[in-house]
Amino acid sequence: MRFSDALQQRWRQHDTLVCVGLDPDPAKFPAHIKGAPDAVFAFCRAIVDATADLACAFKPQIAHFAALRAEDALERLIAHIHQRHPGVPVILDAKRGDIGSTAQHYVTEAFDRYGADAVTLNPYMGRDSIQPFLDRADKGVILLCRTSNPGGADFQALDCGGVPLYLRVAETIARDWNTHGNCALVTGATWPDEIRQVRALVGDMPLLVPGIGAQGGDIEAVMHAGRTTDGSGLMINSSRGIIYAGNDKDFAIAARTAATELRDTINRYR
Amino acid sequence: MRFSDALQQRWRQHDTLVCVGLDPDPAKFPAHIKGAPDAVFAFCRAIVDATADLACAFKPQIAHFAALRAEDALERLIAHIHQRHPGVPVILDAKRGDIGSTAQHYVTEAFDRYGADAVTLNPYMGRDSIQPFLDRADKGVILLCRTSNPGGADFQALDCGGVPLYLRVAETIARDWNTHGNCALVTGATWPDEIRQVRALVGDMPLLVPGIGAQGGDIEAVMHAGRTTDGSGLMINSSRGIIYAGNDKDFAIAARTAATELRDTINRYR
Repeated sequence: MRFSDALQQRWRQHDTLVCVGLDPDPAKFPAHIKGAPDAVFAFCRAIVDATADLACAFKPQIAHFAALRAEDALERLIAHIHQRHPGVPVILDAKRGDIGSTAQHYVTEAFDRYGADAVTLNPYMGRDSIQPFLDRADKGVILLCRTSNPGGADFQALDCGGVPLYLRVAETIARDWNTHGNCALVTGATWPDEIRQVRALVGDMPLLVPGIGAQGGDIEAVMHAGRTTDGSGLMINSSRGIIYAGNDKDFAIAARTAATELRDTINRYR
Repeated sequence: MRFSDALQQRWRQHDTLVCVGLDPDPAKFPAHIKGAPDAVFAFCRAIVDATADLACAFKPQIAHFAALRAEDALERLIAHIHQRHPGVPVILDAKRGDIGSTAQHYVTEAFDRYGADAVTLNPYMGRDSIQPFLDRADKGVILLCRTSNPGGADFQALDCGGVPLYLRVAETIARDWNTHGNCALVTGATWPDEIRQVRALVGDMPLLVPGIGAQGGDIEAVMHAGRTTDGSGLMINSSRGIIYAGNDKDFAIAARTAATELRDTINRYR
């Protein structure tokens, strides 16, 4: 199934805009998992199985696996999601970006090796660095636009002829790069006014919204700024707020409770 | 040794500005290597051993390894360079960039797992996404500025208050981010005028220059535009032009010949 279709289905039929971010950090694992063999996979699988029906997507962040030499666990985790929870798309959060010939190798990494349904990318190097991803029309291409971190403004907010850079990025992607309808944008929850401006430019293009919870973004403000007219259009990500909601034997239940609360809070503003 | 000191030593004492890019692609390997066990490592090691005395740095491009599930070969390759060719710094070409907490995991990946001496990064997410790398004062932090690919102009050349974005990036890094003196910039050989403008802004900050050879950049123009007053300041990268110079049993000798010619051509303009 195309990423964009899978996402629509999750939004409409499963009534959820929650993206569950999978950022495994063994230092934060419950004690009984920490010592287990294959702890990274075991931890993530438990979270996935406890939250799949509440998720519009899962978003494993690749640095958390690479720092642990756990590429193999990431491969098995994504395979597990596809097998046990078909229909829930997987976004590989990698923020890659390189010239054409190398971009093709990153395409292979994300889509063929890991089997991700979508990948996050950095637009700074321009169209040809993204083209090999765009060509995979069934896959989602999620480009950084206005990020949630404090330094996000350093360059993204620079005035480019009366318009900040992130809006030039949004405009270019919506107008020129989205010929297969497989583009989406990252817009941080900490900047709802910016989300509103991006939404006004890009029609119903999906927005991936990190930055609620630990980073302080406000759900009501995000929903008012970014939802489409049918009350969807957003993948609102929570990583730490869900996966480390509990720190004991019942951590997966705690994650489920946190994901349920987040979904319900979001749905109040759809 | 600090990356910046190692680089100075290679430039001055070993008289070379050549950066050897390691982009292994099994389809292009000589027939006798293609079938060998551990072909990626064997190929790269042969190139490294044949060119180390001619190189100011080696630059393995991580996507080429990741697409092949060859992270282990990359780890062993970098360890081999450090052991057999101490003093030749290794730049991990990864173009990473993510928020603070995740950036720390990318730091671990590049510097602790792989043992790289420097890493290429994407500045789009701003200062805090780079800070954990900057804090490793002994390591090189090489930021994308003006890239060599055709799409490089899409955003990098946008006018930001009378100055193109890539110069705002160069200026910000030189003024605010380089407190440990460990920053460098990527400026593509295909844009010598832009290299000149960047050089005028950043003093003697090292520039990594991809894009000669296959991409068409001109060495004389790059040297005139980018060299520092002592005839150094540049890491001029060649990947395909060196590592695929030959396609037979003598491929390593062919690589050595190509690297020697490149070094000598560059040195004519120092």
